[in-house]
Amino acid sequence: MFEDRIARARLRMEELGVDVLLLSVGADLPYFTGYTAMPLERLTMLVLPRAADATLVVPALEAPRVEERPAAFTIQPWGETEDPLSIVARLAGRPGRAAIGDRTWATFVLGLQEALPETGFVTASTVTGPLRACKDAAEVEALRAAAQVVDAIAVAMKERPFAGRTEADISRELVERILEGGHERANFAIVGSGPNAASPHHEPGERVVEVGDSVVCDFGGTMAGYCSDITRTFVVGTPSAEMTDLYQVLFGAQEAAVQAAVVGVTCEAVDAAARTVIAAAGYGDYFIHRTGHGIGLEEHEDPYLVSGNATPLAAGHAFSIEPGIYLPGRCGARIEDIVVATEAGPERLNEAPRELAIVG
Amino acid sequence: MFEDRIARARLRMEELGVDVLLLSVGADLPYFTGYTAMPLERLTMLVLPRAADATLVVPALEAPRVEERPAAFTIQPWGETEDPLSIVARLAGRPGRAAIGDRTWATFVLGLQEALPETGFVTASTVTGPLRACKDAAEVEALRAAAQVVDAIAVAMKERPFAGRTEADISRELVERILEGGHERANFAIVGSGPNAASPHHEPGERVVEVGDSVVCDFGGTMAGYCSDITRTFVVGTPSAEMTDLYQVLFGAQEAAVQAAVVGVTCEAVDAAARTVIAAAGYGDYFIHRTGHGIGLEEHEDPYLVSGNATPLAAGHAFSIEPGIYLPGRCGARIEDIVVATEAGPERLNEAPRELAIVG
Repeated sequence: MFEDRIARARLRMEELGVDVLLLSVGADLPYFTGYTAMPLERLTMLVLPRAADATLVVPALEAPRVEERPAAFTIQPWGETEDPLSIVARLAGRPGRAAIGDRTWATFVLGLQEALPETGFVTASTVTGPLRACKDAAEVEALRAAAQVVDAIAVAMKERPFAGRTEADISRELVERILEGGHERANFAIVGSGPNAASPHHEPGERVVEVGDSVVCDFGGTMAGYCSDITRTFVVGTPSAEMTDLYQVLFGAQEAAVQAAVVGVTCEAVDAAARTVIAAAGYGDYFIHRTGHGIGLEEHEDPYLVSGNATPLAAGHAFSIEPGIYLPGRCGARIEDIVVATEAGPERLNEAPRELAIVG
Repeated sequence: MFEDRIARARLRMEELGVDVLLLSVGADLPYFTGYTAMPLERLTMLVLPRAADATLVVPALEAPRVEERPAAFTIQPWGETEDPLSIVARLAGRPGRAAIGDRTWATFVLGLQEALPETGFVTASTVTGPLRACKDAAEVEALRAAAQVVDAIAVAMKERPFAGRTEADISRELVERILEGGHERANFAIVGSGPNAASPHHEPGERVVEVGDSVVCDFGGTMAGYCSDITRTFVVGTPSAEMTDLYQVLFGAQEAAVQAAVVGVTCEAVDAAARTVIAAAGYGDYFIHRTGHGIGLEEHEDPYLVSGNATPLAAGHAFSIEPGIYLPGRCGARIEDIVVATEAGPERLNEAPRELAIVG
């Protein structure tokens, strides 16, 4: 599998005139090697030339963590008083163009530019983004398994009390359930209640949920390497007429975008499908973010469903569809599912009911 | 406090000829503003010119998270179809030299270099490292409070069973205790047993601890923004003669390095203090990492206690002292405390007994 991925990366490197791929923290490295770099100040970097064997430059004290696979890469440990950047530069040769991992720390980018003054640098996602965006069957199943865990949590939360609890307390419960459900990591658990529901990336705090509040819960984690991400909106007691109207519009917008997510349709057209419904109902100014993002080894990756992205959807693209409507200072709602584009049409991986959930 | 820190940064910018500081993910931004950037693909960046007001460029959907403080900075939200890099470039003016946060993603570094082709880029730590390295009294107290929590865990673990449990299970217990102890985040919980104890950054796995094993436990987290980090070594049952000898050497080396950590002494001399003791006993080849790292808002920050670092210790420097001896395929041990350099001499923040702990 890794060898096949590396072969496809080399083909793209050739198309793009990239001589070497330099991968550090982030998901590209595990995608090609199974190994994840520690996000620390000691450099770990895979040097993957287009036309020579790959080498993983790794701190000596972390070398015992790595399983060497000579067919795919060999290991080059570096000691505490060595300069890993000069080792990378030597292994890279004198590349005309290097593609460096998107999340590589500035420290290392600037250091490599100094060590390789003749080299032009581009981001690795220009090479890896389209490869990683198209999930194979095993990857889709991994996303589905993670989705089923958060679906079950969304269903279970409908039976739980919300009123009288802090956002932070509900968020902690979501994190615990994510871990108990078999994820190795909870990545986030946004809980925004009442006026805080109008803040899409609200940091759950000490606000106590009250009767009448809408509560946006957006949570996910990583299971067997692949991410989950779901949003459901709950209302404590009877929803207001405003919330009922707003939610009906949102529900239709989310459905419209899912149905629009057909192979060959552009990413921006899917965004427009949701946005048109919301704008037609007069809420256009209150949908303040893109419709979705790709998902896989990372919570956010290619393709992005946003105005300006004319990339056509391909079979195996997996992404969130998550329109929201946010009335500042008052309330908000969002509905999010993970969807896979297939030749047979869009397929939702999340199946938890998405009607406005009434809770106590 | 923030205003004072910003003023000191501006003085250093003047010394170094830095025209603008550009801060994104990492600890510099919260150090100067109290706000932490979300580590996502949407850019958050503080533009702090040497001679003009600071602006926080932030995704519109995250703007409600930020508390604007006009004396320190104003907020510039950007919408989903805007280009945040051009906003940053405009706010930065035409700087001759820009210092960019060390952990800023390569995507943004390369994008800013394109948007500011006349500008030379250096890492922000050249400006901020020495400021952040010297902790004030409140910061030392925050580190002490976090240290006391992990001290109590180290003591409690001596009464817990080790034999028959997996490394992963013990690691989970450490994480739970860190969170129960009041840390907002557990950052790591290394548990390396038997031969795995010879891997300094071992990933805790399914190996079951056996009688006779040494077990290195290295764990820490973040409490009220400041980090804890402690290592203690446990032995199940009676230690071997080899472990007893090795540990006695290590104990002496750690003590020697702590006593050497006097204001005015260089970082590399502290490293040498531990290394000399270990080398004299014949274990020199088995101490394969530096003696320590600074600690504060980040687990690893300036100053680094490593050969080649001639920086003299100053009052308020806080750092780990953590020599280790690792016999590949056999066993290993490490002892780590956080130490603060003060005018009255080195002060340990960790006080848990550091003798080899015998467990069941």
